[in-house]
Amino acid sequence: MTSPADIGTDLASARAAYEELKAQGMRLDLTRGKPSAEQLDLATPMLSLPGADYRAADGTDTRNYAGLQGLPELRGLFAPFLAVPAEQLVAFGNSSLELMHDTVVHALLSPLPGGDRRWVDEERVVFLAPVPGYDRHFALCERLGVDLVPVPMTPDGPDMDVVDELVRDPAVKGIWCVPKYSNPDGTTYSDETVRRLAATPAAAPDFRIFWDNAYAVHHLTEHETEVADVLALSAEAGNPDRPFVFGSTSKITLAGAGVAFLGSSAANVAWWLALTGKRTIGPDKTNHLRHVRFLRDADGLRDHMRRHREIIAPKFAVVDEVLTSDFADTPGVSWSKPAGGYFVTLTVPDGTAARIVRLAKDAGLALTPAGATHPYGDDPQDRTIRLAPTFPPLPEVEKAMAGVVVCVRLALAERAA
Amino acid sequence: MTSPADIGTDLASARAAYEELKAQGMRLDLTRGKPSAEQLDLATPMLSLPGADYRAADGTDTRNYAGLQGLPELRGLFAPFLAVPAEQLVAFGNSSLELMHDTVVHALLSPLPGGDRRWVDEERVVFLAPVPGYDRHFALCERLGVDLVPVPMTPDGPDMDVVDELVRDPAVKGIWCVPKYSNPDGTTYSDETVRRLAATPAAAPDFRIFWDNAYAVHHLTEHETEVADVLALSAEAGNPDRPFVFGSTSKITLAGAGVAFLGSSAANVAWWLALTGKRTIGPDKTNHLRHVRFLRDADGLRDHMRRHREIIAPKFAVVDEVLTSDFADTPGVSWSKPAGGYFVTLTVPDGTAARIVRLAKDAGLALTPAGATHPYGDDPQDRTIRLAPTFPPLPEVEKAMAGVVVCVRLALAERAA
Repeated sequence: MTSPADIGTDLASARAAYEELKAQGMRLDLTRGKPSAEQLDLATPMLSLPGADYRAADGTDTRNYAGLQGLPELRGLFAPFLAVPAEQLVAFGNSSLELMHDTVVHALLSPLPGGDRRWVDEERVVFLAPVPGYDRHFALCERLGVDLVPVPMTPDGPDMDVVDELVRDPAVKGIWCVPKYSNPDGTTYSDETVRRLAATPAAAPDFRIFWDNAYAVHHLTEHETEVADVLALSAEAGNPDRPFVFGSTSKITLAGAGVAFLGSSAANVAWWLALTGKRTIGPDKTNHLRHVRFLRDADGLRDHMRRHREIIAPKFAVVDEVLTSDFADTPGVSWSKPAGGYFVTLTVPDGTAARIVRLAKDAGLALTPAGATHPYGDDPQDRTIRLAPTFPPLPEVEKAMAGVVVCVRLALAERAA
Repeated sequence: MTSPADIGTDLASARAAYEELKAQGMRLDLTRGKPSAEQLDLATPMLSLPGADYRAADGTDTRNYAGLQGLPELRGLFAPFLAVPAEQLVAFGNSSLELMHDTVVHALLSPLPGGDRRWVDEERVVFLAPVPGYDRHFALCERLGVDLVPVPMTPDGPDMDVVDELVRDPAVKGIWCVPKYSNPDGTTYSDETVRRLAATPAAAPDFRIFWDNAYAVHHLTEHETEVADVLALSAEAGNPDRPFVFGSTSKITLAGAGVAFLGSSAANVAWWLALTGKRTIGPDKTNHLRHVRFLRDADGLRDHMRRHREIIAPKFAVVDEVLTSDFADTPGVSWSKPAGGYFVTLTVPDGTAARIVRLAKDAGLALTPAGATHPYGDDPQDRTIRLAPTFPPLPEVEKAMAGVVVCVRLALAERAA
């Protein structure tokens, strides 16, 4: 047992350490899943491509209009990695978030295949939000008037007993999923979870899985984690139109100048392209060609991702080492050990996450706002902190994590006092 | 007077000429306003840019995320040409049509500045469509459930007496305008028309002018036609939030790989960016930088457009020469003589346009479908044909126009018979 005197000593020394941290005047940032300059350097040769050889494999002049579905050879390259047949895959602009947003917009304004009315004509539209999850998924729903209902994450993905129960409400039209190396806890959905999602007894005939496979090839170890084929399993379960699969090269090539993908059933893709054809004549095919020329093929893509891993795996290792050395035996403190993706979730004792983020901010260390991992910014237990170690150089990650430790210690000492 | 016998002779010879045309087995296309390969060659050096020097003028790493409003130096370059202050100009993706579509979508789903509700909550939303006009404007409205009401074009732009009357209906929320070298008739709006648009007594507080300045720098003569400053005039008239200005480099640099712009009042831009910030982290800034590096400055842009003119002005000259030599004195046949832009409007006697397009199609010559210049594909007088001479090489334009003449002659002879 810790005596009250010990607690007083702990609090005093934690405060002293924190004042020392503040005195350093650090300005570090662990907020967003951004690639570092060193990672972007890997793909910078792209910025001289495609050069004067602007023709696609089929002779298409990539400089001109048209080609709504995107360059066939780029779709062919990414099809196996996203587990979508190339003919059901769309390659588009520089943002998969756009594709998700626009898919919700299309569904709001035009009935989906299998649906009987536009979502704006429903009394209420609900998406299920596994938590912790990705704040931008939640923000676009909030902006578009789509209500969010949280579902707890388990080590196998969303709690499917909860999902199976919630989807009996016909207002539930969708669920957000980051099936591999999930943002922010690094979870990969088990095959059983994917099978249950594909078959979950949704009351809404136009229920959709928004399958944001953002980290499909973003492994932090030599093992290439696989996730079950949601399109195939949904078709087997009699729900072929259920999944919309998304992906992008934002964290493969260049974060702001990549290519985003949407894949789905033939019916959904036809629906999506028909609506998108009223919006644009087609995506930037020169950027599609640029990607094909640079990545070349599946082996080229794998090699490229290995080079990313060499840069970022040591940063994740530092996060784990620092947390292990300081909190291995601290009750209520735990963290994810992702095998891929861009984030570590640090779980702290209930009621301390916001305090820790605030302490860090005041010491010049930006962390993702507490609550951002939950719909409406509300983490009811106030215990989830997302750490994003990829952007700062390694020495800064070390320094930032030392700062995180000081802030956690002070918050815990304050709580005990 | 033509005697019945003459008419019979005319019809017989017109038919013979048409059969000869068909026997040529031509496969030519005057349908779309696409730049030719020769024009795209002008900007092909872009496809090796920006190379390893990826930093913007302010030091921004263009490769990474962020920068929702677009690269400042690109906005600065185009601001004077679009008559929008750079700080109220957004540079975005590769399609201005996208920006127009998404602006309507945003207004459907979120109240505009000055508006009191979302357009989806209105009983009816109407846009005015000056005719002849651009089919893609109409198609996006039809898809989004926005009704179109035609307004006749005059040599000064839309008939403002009609507009002033129609906007008294609060359901009228917008008007499509291509103010300079209009698609398809080449009209440039007079200053008086712009002044009246800025001040038209719209009943809807969220009435908007969709100002598609697609051909801002696309002159076919040495004279740089100016159009009045719709943002300034609207502000003067007490309607600062009325115009949304659009433009793009699709017909300046590369049709599929250009940059699109949106400009408006500070309030509208803030509204648009706030909504767009839920949709994407930002546009492809490397393509913005690519444009700045290639076009450099206002003089660079002007030089580049002169080179376009050298390629396409002779094609427009051929269209005019052929039509003049054959139809100078034919009652009911007239055509526009644009000083810029991408189209010629050929007006034929009532009830013959669809027949002419059909005859051309059967002879292997694709023309824009009759009616495409009007909402719902309905040209009530069936007299408007849009000709787009930029894409085919010059000898093909000559051949195609010879074919047009044969088809028009046959349709006129059939009508007289």
